[in-house]
Amino acid sequence: MDPAAYKHLLAVARGERPADLLLKNARVVNVFSGKVTEGSVALAGSYIAGVGDYQKGEVVEDLQGAYLAPGLIDTHVHLESSMVRPAEYARAVVPHGTTTVVSDPHEIANVCGLAGIRYMLEASEGLPLEVLVNLPSCVPASHLSTSGASLGKDDLLPFLDHPRVLGLAEFMNVPGAVSAAPDAVEKLLAFRGRPIDGHAPGVRGKTLAAYVAAGPWADHESVAPDEALEKVAAGLYVFLRQGTAARNLEDLLPAVGPLTAARMAFCSDDRHPAELLGEGHVDYMLRLAVAGGVDPLLALRMATLSAAEAFGLRDRGAVAPGRLADLVAFGDLREFKVRAVWFRGRKVAEEGRPLFSGAPEVSEEEVRQTVRASLSRLDLRVPARRAKMRVIRAYEGQLITTAELVEPRVEGGMVVADPERDLAKLAVVERHGRGSGAGVGFVRGLGLERGAIAGSVGHDSHNLTVAGMDDLSMRTALAALARSGGGYAVALGEEVLELLPLPIAGLMSDRPIEEVRQRMDALLAAAHEKLGARSRDPFMQLAFLPLEVIPSLKLTDRGLVDVDRFELVDLWV
Amino acid sequence: MDPAAYKHLLAVARGERPADLLLKNARVVNVFSGKVTEGSVALAGSYIAGVGDYQKGEVVEDLQGAYLAPGLIDTHVHLESSMVRPAEYARAVVPHGTTTVVSDPHEIANVCGLAGIRYMLEASEGLPLEVLVNLPSCVPASHLSTSGASLGKDDLLPFLDHPRVLGLAEFMNVPGAVSAAPDAVEKLLAFRGRPIDGHAPGVRGKTLAAYVAAGPWADHESVAPDEALEKVAAGLYVFLRQGTAARNLEDLLPAVGPLTAARMAFCSDDRHPAELLGEGHVDYMLRLAVAGGVDPLLALRMATLSAAEAFGLRDRGAVAPGRLADLVAFGDLREFKVRAVWFRGRKVAEEGRPLFSGAPEVSEEEVRQTVRASLSRLDLRVPARRAKMRVIRAYEGQLITTAELVEPRVEGGMVVADPERDLAKLAVVERHGRGSGAGVGFVRGLGLERGAIAGSVGHDSHNLTVAGMDDLSMRTALAALARSGGGYAVALGEEVLELLPLPIAGLMSDRPIEEVRQRMDALLAAAHEKLGARSRDPFMQLAFLPLEVIPSLKLTDRGLVDVDRFELVDLWV
Repeated sequence: MDPAAYKHLLAVARGERPADLLLKNARVVNVFSGKVTEGSVALAGSYIAGVGDYQKGEVVEDLQGAYLAPGLIDTHVHLESSMVRPAEYARAVVPHGTTTVVSDPHEIANVCGLAGIRYMLEASEGLPLEVLVNLPSCVPASHLSTSGASLGKDDLLPFLDHPRVLGLAEFMNVPGAVSAAPDAVEKLLAFRGRPIDGHAPGVRGKTLAAYVAAGPWADHESVAPDEALEKVAAGLYVFLRQGTAARNLEDLLPAVGPLTAARMAFCSDDRHPAELLGEGHVDYMLRLAVAGGVDPLLALRMATLSAAEAFGLRDRGAVAPGRLADLVAFGDLREFKVRAVWFRGRKVAEEGRPLFSGAPEVSEEEVRQTVRASLSRLDLRVPARRAKMRVIRAYEGQLITTAELVEPRVEGGMVVADPERDLAKLAVVERHGRGSGAGVGFVRGLGLERGAIAGSVGHDSHNLTVAGMDDLSMRTALAALARSGGGYAVALGEEVLELLPLPIAGLMSDRPIEEVRQRMDALLAAAHEKLGARSRDPFMQLAFLPLEVIPSLKLTDRGLVDVDRFELVDLWV
Repeated sequence: MDPAAYKHLLAVARGERPADLLLKNARVVNVFSGKVTEGSVALAGSYIAGVGDYQKGEVVEDLQGAYLAPGLIDTHVHLESSMVRPAEYARAVVPHGTTTVVSDPHEIANVCGLAGIRYMLEASEGLPLEVLVNLPSCVPASHLSTSGASLGKDDLLPFLDHPRVLGLAEFMNVPGAVSAAPDAVEKLLAFRGRPIDGHAPGVRGKTLAAYVAAGPWADHESVAPDEALEKVAAGLYVFLRQGTAARNLEDLLPAVGPLTAARMAFCSDDRHPAELLGEGHVDYMLRLAVAGGVDPLLALRMATLSAAEAFGLRDRGAVAPGRLADLVAFGDLREFKVRAVWFRGRKVAEEGRPLFSGAPEVSEEEVRQTVRASLSRLDLRVPARRAKMRVIRAYEGQLITTAELVEPRVEGGMVVADPERDLAKLAVVERHGRGSGAGVGFVRGLGLERGAIAGSVGHDSHNLTVAGMDDLSMRTALAALARSGGGYAVALGEEVLELLPLPIAGLMSDRPIEEVRQRMDALLAAAHEKLGARSRDPFMQLAFLPLEVIPSLKLTDRGLVDVDRFELVDLWV
């Protein structure tokens, strides 16, 4: 800390100098005591100097009885899932009271490797939102798909010198961690002593003990209160997740109590523009928690102090002397309507509007033109060979799939899609310039009647993923993605009905978030109205069909993956 | 962590290998959830592998339903106050369930400087008690007395490389911190990001805001619940203190609740052999807290997890996978009778008896022969000059004194002691080889009738301090201390009635703690029976009469100190 700023801070705290900004008539939320006190908060530079009867400020703002709380913290988020650059993401979440996010650039790292991590750090520099970074621990997610990069501990460790890098992000390789596999041991021991975030869906009992002993500090994959409580009791911080696809928060509320709230926080993991702009962010989670019966002060503790403590951040998470002046004013503690937000002592949002714009000047050379698929030799045909084939069964609003055995519909010796049985052809085409190999299979549950939808967002390797009722539509959609450097497309025959270009790593747009939301809405409308899609969001479903670390049957560029056996399996039984 | 030990730990956690030690039939205390569960705890090497239904162990111990809790933590202690070496201290506290102490070698540093800190680190190496160290921040305590050393930030920073050094110890220079005095700023900014322990007696309001903003993380000087709650609300961890002299714990219990318990812990600060062996240590504080109405699980959280969190120690403080196997078995959660203690997976105490002995082989050359007072030129005479003199009024069981204006008793032109008014002569003689200057004054409240008592323990500079009813007895006592290299003495005329030698820095004995306790008891008996002393422990009172940072009137080797004005004042008004 700069000595001059430090001396100024202390002089304001002593009441001997006017605050740089005095927030008066506040109901100040104290997350240590769980109490609300009326008074003023004196700010000096980027810090809170004091709380109480401070009288003078160079600038004085009357909060008219609003609740003043610490800035909200999202403990685990992939910014890429917002489909916009970090600066646009900040414009979306800061007006909702978020001032710190602990991000994991896992998606872009799977596409662009170290250049992707560097880009996210540079593109989030100087924003009125602190984008902290945990380094992606599992790139690639597994050996069963082709990603754009492979990162080992020696790639990651140099980033620890960056002031916004905390430690290691969600350690998804549970079997590796638990069994002390060499590459897992290497990473986990290299980061020991630094924050290590976990990812342990459904892990319980002795496997959980081994996972915790292996090193992770936290987990955000609980889906039931007893699972969450078991993880808390084992020493993990538990992050209640409310994403666009995975919405676990309300199920977990029975686990929240005065003691466990000190070991729980909130995270979004993946939230799309529509939900960020519509429902909100951590403020939305506060609303849900309080509506579900959680004491508002406990909910706020989780969203601030507990989140900070989970990562050892002692400089924030409370309205208290010497802490960073990241603050949010709420009209009440039930609706949590955000009146204003301050970041490092500066007002950055008011009544839902960001008071900032622009973005850091960053080279995007290494993160553009990342769709390097050669589609000319792509063969989507599937010769009929036997009576039964393995088909992926997808479900609305779930990442998990099941496997079904289905009779093929055959035309001219080739298996084709069958709208009557909601049976679409599915293909995942390698797009990282590594030969454009493709896995082809079938999926039920997307609800398409005709045409095709495709995306370059395909967790976690983010190859091109396309589902359709005919090969021409599928090729049209894929070609649109190849031309636009990635994105989402809807095609019917030779026509591209709608396209959302995501030219940054095939994951993010270079447009404002409102525009991305509109284009996404248009994509959905086209899918629903012109392709007859019945699923609420078939693009979300599509994006997770290649994720070979979530059960049960998935498709990667290498073929069908039986996740339970964790190996490639043939289409035909 | 050693990879082989790590792999072994995970294998035991998975239940695939027998535990090195299996503690079965335990009621396991979970400080995260505030619940007790029945089951087994599997240990692997120095770590806890898992909690639950583990069945196999190379060694199996049946706890027969005892409560198994994390090892207890003392968050702030001067080991020197136990008057024994660290190894003996461990023998005293480990059987009471303590496995970690955060120590501040402030006393020995005031005598021996860096050599004192080094000695404490070396003498506590390898004990079955982790002696963590915060570095003394205020040596000397002030410029108003002569200490044996003066330590700046550049002296302290190199110690941060030591694995058991955490940060900076109790920052007593409150005015310096609050006003951003140069030497305070230098130290506080140099240690920013590392634990900084505080010391802010009675500091409230804006002064507290400035103090917290200056950097300290914790405080152990609260004496009333509202003071403790104000400090918690300001973001400080609050340590409830129960020392030999300062006994604040019970007064503070009304401040303990489910939320604040996460921000509170226990400390002893200074405890003598009689209290360590008689009352106990942190276990005694648990007894007091629970007797005072605190939920036993909350009390245990404070004594373990909260204490660990206060210093960012994520490797202990809970019975959970991957944490250090520092454990204590209690017969119940009311009396907290300690049945057994394990340190790093090894049983180290049972039924109140330590299962270890011996001490590290450490050179004591630099910490012995530290009483370098030349008494031959010492002049204890006080010529009578005016009608009223400033006299220190001491009180039983308090560190603070008040100032009284008293008529002198004069004989042959010299002021002498006056037993009828409980008025003793008091002298503080510099003993660090810096000229043996002496301050001479008078004190009321020790209750002596004749003779003299003296000690080389005189906070914080630890000069020789003597109080008596005649100069000959005072000289006899001082000479005894000079010969023994420090200690406590009782003298009458030319005879030394009792002597407790403390040859290590004039602060610690080289004998077993039981023997030191017996000698201390003999000293007290001699003072009571042969000098007619009425105060319960006049030696404790004596040791704090030179402490010029505690109000109101004190005596150092430089003379009388008006603590409120923080300057030297004349004996005569």
